[in-house]
Amino acid sequence: MAGRREERSAHKRAEIVAAARKVFTTHGYLGASMDAVAAEAGASKRTVYQYFADKEQLFATVVLDTVDRGHEYFRPRIEALAEADDLDEALRRHARGTLAGIMNPEVLQMRRLVMAEADRFPEVGREYFERSWARTTGLLAETFARLTERGLLKVADPERAALLYTWLVVSIPLNRTAFMGNAATYTVAELDELADEGARVFLAAYGVGG
Amino acid sequence: MAGRREERSAHKRAEIVAAARKVFTTHGYLGASMDAVAAEAGASKRTVYQYFADKEQLFATVVLDTVDRGHEYFRPRIEALAEADDLDEALRRHARGTLAGIMNPEVLQMRRLVMAEADRFPEVGREYFERSWARTTGLLAETFARLTERGLLKVADPERAALLYTWLVVSIPLNRTAFMGNAATYTVAELDELADEGARVFLAAYGVGG
Repeated sequence: MAGRREERSAHKRAEIVAAARKVFTTHGYLGASMDAVAAEAGASKRTVYQYFADKEQLFATVVLDTVDRGHEYFRPRIEALAEADDLDEALRRHARGTLAGIMNPEVLQMRRLVMAEADRFPEVGREYFERSWARTTGLLAETFARLTERGLLKVADPERAALLYTWLVVSIPLNRTAFMGNAATYTVAELDELADEGARVFLAAYGVGG
Repeated sequence: MAGRREERSAHKRAEIVAAARKVFTTHGYLGASMDAVAAEAGASKRTVYQYFADKEQLFATVVLDTVDRGHEYFRPRIEALAEADDLDEALRRHARGTLAGIMNPEVLQMRRLVMAEADRFPEVGREYFERSWARTTGLLAETFARLTERGLLKVADPERAALLYTWLVVSIPLNRTAFMGNAATYTVAELDELADEGARVFLAAYGVGG
């Protein structure tokens, strides 16, 4: 019985977080109200407050929940890269997956929201940065170190190489989208081509040569 | 007489724009008031309205004024690059100047402000993007095409190469600063080293070889 009650409770909590994500990314932090979150979740405001003490706590939870789900997307893709035999092909595949993941509308909205609120909530901004960006590039840095040991890359500073690689792959569409919103649309083929070029430039600088 | 009156008028207008930049970047668009701008400029609110019809028009003016002054910083540095003989050295110098320019606190604040308001003012976001980012990388693309003609680079798609080069140079500190605000500090030596590495990676992929 206790187990089923906990399950229902976890389910309700997840519904509130999903509703809050939608309200925050649509209206911003200041424009979001606990009333709107409750309405979106189909719950009473009292229920929302049973799970979250205030709007600030709910905001932090929504941001970190999105980050953790993002990491679950990127982690297996990086692990696959570490085991690669054909690095050229594996890096292109990884680059395409990374760019597609970053250009997910939910990820883009959350990124913009956290940046916009970085002055108001520096701790949320820092935790977002460390748990999303820094954690993912940290895992990628370990992978580049491993690939260097295996003789498939020559990387002296794995952390910096991981950051530069990621930016080579994601920067162009990510920046355009940050300013242009939905007006900056890309086809899958265009994104794949940008990912391929990022991987190519990276291998020119950090590969072991032809 | 008319000339001096116009001069005084242009001077007053510039004072209002400078005051508005400070108010908008400190308080955001919604938190900024025409009263606060007038107080910061040491002018009456009536005077502010003589120059700007409303807050939205003032906001657009402030953004584009910052963009135009930024372009005047970047333009001569790109032109110098086009004339380079020692490309390796000239590219490192250009990269260092670019990164220092982007990491200027006023530029960072304006960039964050425009991104935060991109949903509310898509036209301002688009014009910011086109007049700052796209104009500067457009000039850089012309320069890379010229350097390719001169046999100092091998660049097939100058626009894409210009974007990738810029991101190689600025991404790491720019992204960290976007989320961490003032907590993400860099020394000049650290920025120079990141700029040098960006230039090195670019030349590995697009240079004519050693």
